[in-house]
Amino acid sequence: MASKVLDPDNINENVKKCVYAVRGELYLRASELQKEGKKIIFTNVGNPHALGQKPLTFPRQVMALCQAPFLMDDPNVGLLFPPDAVARAKHYLSMTSGGVGAYSDSRGLPGVRQEVAEFIQKRDGYPSDPEHIFLTDGASKGVMMMLNALIRNEKDGVLVPIPQYPLYSASIALYGGILIPYYLNEESNWSLDFSDVRNQVVIARNKKIVPRALVFINPGNPTGQCLSVTNLQDLIKFCYKERLLLMADEVYQVNVYQDERPFVSAKKVLMDMGAPYSNTVELVSFHSVSKGFLGECGQRGGYFEMTNIHPQTVEELYKVASISLSPNVVGQIMMGLMVTPPRPFDISYPQYQAESKAIIESMRRRAHIMTDGFNKCEDVVCNFTEGAMYSFPRIKLSKAAMDAAAQAGKAADVFYCLKLLEATGISTVPGSGFGQKEGTLHLRTTILPLEQDMPGIMAKFQKFHADFMAQYSDYSVSSRL
Amino acid sequence: MASKVLDPDNINENVKKCVYAVRGELYLRASELQKEGKKIIFTNVGNPHALGQKPLTFPRQVMALCQAPFLMDDPNVGLLFPPDAVARAKHYLSMTSGGVGAYSDSRGLPGVRQEVAEFIQKRDGYPSDPEHIFLTDGASKGVMMMLNALIRNEKDGVLVPIPQYPLYSASIALYGGILIPYYLNEESNWSLDFSDVRNQVVIARNKKIVPRALVFINPGNPTGQCLSVTNLQDLIKFCYKERLLLMADEVYQVNVYQDERPFVSAKKVLMDMGAPYSNTVELVSFHSVSKGFLGECGQRGGYFEMTNIHPQTVEELYKVASISLSPNVVGQIMMGLMVTPPRPFDISYPQYQAESKAIIESMRRRAHIMTDGFNKCEDVVCNFTEGAMYSFPRIKLSKAAMDAAAQAGKAADVFYCLKLLEATGISTVPGSGFGQKEGTLHLRTTILPLEQDMPGIMAKFQKFHADFMAQYSDYSVSSRL
Repeated sequence: MASKVLDPDNINENVKKCVYAVRGELYLRASELQKEGKKIIFTNVGNPHALGQKPLTFPRQVMALCQAPFLMDDPNVGLLFPPDAVARAKHYLSMTSGGVGAYSDSRGLPGVRQEVAEFIQKRDGYPSDPEHIFLTDGASKGVMMMLNALIRNEKDGVLVPIPQYPLYSASIALYGGILIPYYLNEESNWSLDFSDVRNQVVIARNKKIVPRALVFINPGNPTGQCLSVTNLQDLIKFCYKERLLLMADEVYQVNVYQDERPFVSAKKVLMDMGAPYSNTVELVSFHSVSKGFLGECGQRGGYFEMTNIHPQTVEELYKVASISLSPNVVGQIMMGLMVTPPRPFDISYPQYQAESKAIIESMRRRAHIMTDGFNKCEDVVCNFTEGAMYSFPRIKLSKAAMDAAAQAGKAADVFYCLKLLEATGISTVPGSGFGQKEGTLHLRTTILPLEQDMPGIMAKFQKFHADFMAQYSDYSVSSRL
Repeated sequence: MASKVLDPDNINENVKKCVYAVRGELYLRASELQKEGKKIIFTNVGNPHALGQKPLTFPRQVMALCQAPFLMDDPNVGLLFPPDAVARAKHYLSMTSGGVGAYSDSRGLPGVRQEVAEFIQKRDGYPSDPEHIFLTDGASKGVMMMLNALIRNEKDGVLVPIPQYPLYSASIALYGGILIPYYLNEESNWSLDFSDVRNQVVIARNKKIVPRALVFINPGNPTGQCLSVTNLQDLIKFCYKERLLLMADEVYQVNVYQDERPFVSAKKVLMDMGAPYSNTVELVSFHSVSKGFLGECGQRGGYFEMTNIHPQTVEELYKVASISLSPNVVGQIMMGLMVTPPRPFDISYPQYQAESKAIIESMRRRAHIMTDGFNKCEDVVCNFTEGAMYSFPRIKLSKAAMDAAAQAGKAADVFYCLKLLEATGISTVPGSGFGQKEGTLHLRTTILPLEQDMPGIMAKFQKFHADFMAQYSDYSVSSRL
């Protein structure tokens, strides 16, 4: 019989090439187990509300009113909503052309883009132009749009830190480019190793690959490190020298759990450096409502800001954005709310402050609980989660465990994570999904389970790990026989 | 000086190739004029709320409660929300893993996909499998995902009706494929001309193009025709014989303004035909919350259903969907609400019925007002808008007008539409944005201005048209001199 048009053998090769581990084998198995009634702790993806984090009250009040503006004509509205939420809902609705049910401009609502520009200006101390800001359905969609425009053919390469967030590897594969890996240095807390960056560019060029862009994630995903200003300066100088577009994934900028290196944006560092950097280095910076203390992943709000990008290319990107008409308007308003929190004299200010502070402070404590918990295990080493939402412990497995994995036809880290899932319900992602130095094995987990659940989860992990290591010990009775 | 990485000369050629007229030159000029203070009637895009259509009350009540679930713990909730809205909000929230702020599965919430399957089953009388339904950020994103998977290289072709909705031409260009045009027959109300479809496939194959899929839009955009069951059977037989994927754009299925040919889905026709069609022809059907009577464009909710698609390819599409994590959850719930309206015994039923009926009945009247209004003009011919949201009148321009357009460096229809915009504020899209038979000129406008505004708008158009024709008459004093 003739094959189908959409036979797997007949579809776009690039679609098949991409791999997305965060929702890969482990996630699929966890979903199956959940269907069978097993309690699963989904720490495979940074999805705070799924693990019990409550949404902040004020943004949700505003959003409810934006969805149902007729409530504001009801004399009882004041019984359920504070006046500053009503005022803010009116503010955002006035920016739309017909409420949240109308398409916006394909770059997003001009009013929200203005608010984002003001946020950036306040954060960095440098002007930001709303015409260079596009709102997107989450940061991922923005990253994909940029990579699609950047990658011209199968010789175009993008430098990506390894371990990396697989959005990058998957999108680069989907758009037919080449990922040029540069390795972060686990021994010095996942720091940037510039000699490796330089080296990889040389290797790539020798293979006739054209390096076009360099991605960094700060704070790091899955590695949790925070970059120093010096690191950022070096990256910018490198991009200047090598003529690379710098893609700054800064979605975790609020999730910082150490005080030595507060978040500084690539935009600010670039502007601080002055000419010839500040007026030539092409930079695209990404941000999102999904992370920080909002954690509003499901609302799909994101933006990117373009610096030193050719105006005609900005127009081309506008055209591409137009094909799917507009990002979702609810996510855009959530972005407006994120960058414009209640002011000190607003009625909702104290509650907003209390709620947001409680979340970030708890995340900081959880980062410690988790890192410490991993480091208490034999043959597990974990750098401190300085920022973002993940721990990425290294697991040293015995030969017996490696052999068992090979026999099961699984990569060793996948084997370990599957066993962990079956034994404890903890759903993680094997390090191979992010890339890891050959000979090393890791897993990624989020620090997002509720704080009160965290000690129990770490105890479960520790017990599992001890049992696993005992079962697959190279010196066990069975292997000595 | 060295050129930039993202110089327009240096970006992906496919990005540059795509054209998206709905937000093209006319839209940009209209936006400029609006900024200058001119009142613009945006009939360039099917965006009902932007032209004053009110959202339906019940779905927005549910959505408000989903955004602010804490309202349901408030003793005063009953003052602002009916109990069936509260019950429905709880129903949808129970489908999520943490409310609208949590990522869903990348294919969408299983509960909503189940509701979509039940809707399809009830509509068509055939089973529908939720595992073959993906929720998307509007139908456009689903179309783009399918085209990206389908198009393997620059020899893969997709048959698209001309005039067409430029989502198709733009996406096919973006993903590097070839658009194979088949022309609708304006003289017989934009009917399908099968001899042309067959002919175009032969022409394409002679050029070594591989036809892979056939797109149809029913009811048609921009042409407004409704396909007969016979048309659909012929399309299915053709796809069977030529091994083409059938892409059924059915987003306007509720927008039907004639009674002879009620909407019948391609899925139903395919199933009615039985083997070998029903079990082999690959079909993907698209639907949206943006059209119908909801018109919830800004919420970005859509779905596609796959029939006879290889299961492994479904898995590949799932993987691609995973890269951007999940469609926006609010749009998904809006889809659930669309396919599961209040039932006759629900408190909100009478209001929902009244609101939805009023919108569709008014659209039907507006379709008549608009078509009749165009046909009253000399040198304008307009097929009746049987369905969808658009009129696509043909304008016959004088030689003098054509010469003036050429002198201004504009296509003649662009020239006409720009003059219309400047004179009246009516923002339309030139027919060339959709494709039109050589030697013909059209414009697309929506039937969406409020009914009470419609006579005034048509009067403005008629006056403009008469003035334009007088100004550019081939027999005017100036041209006779």
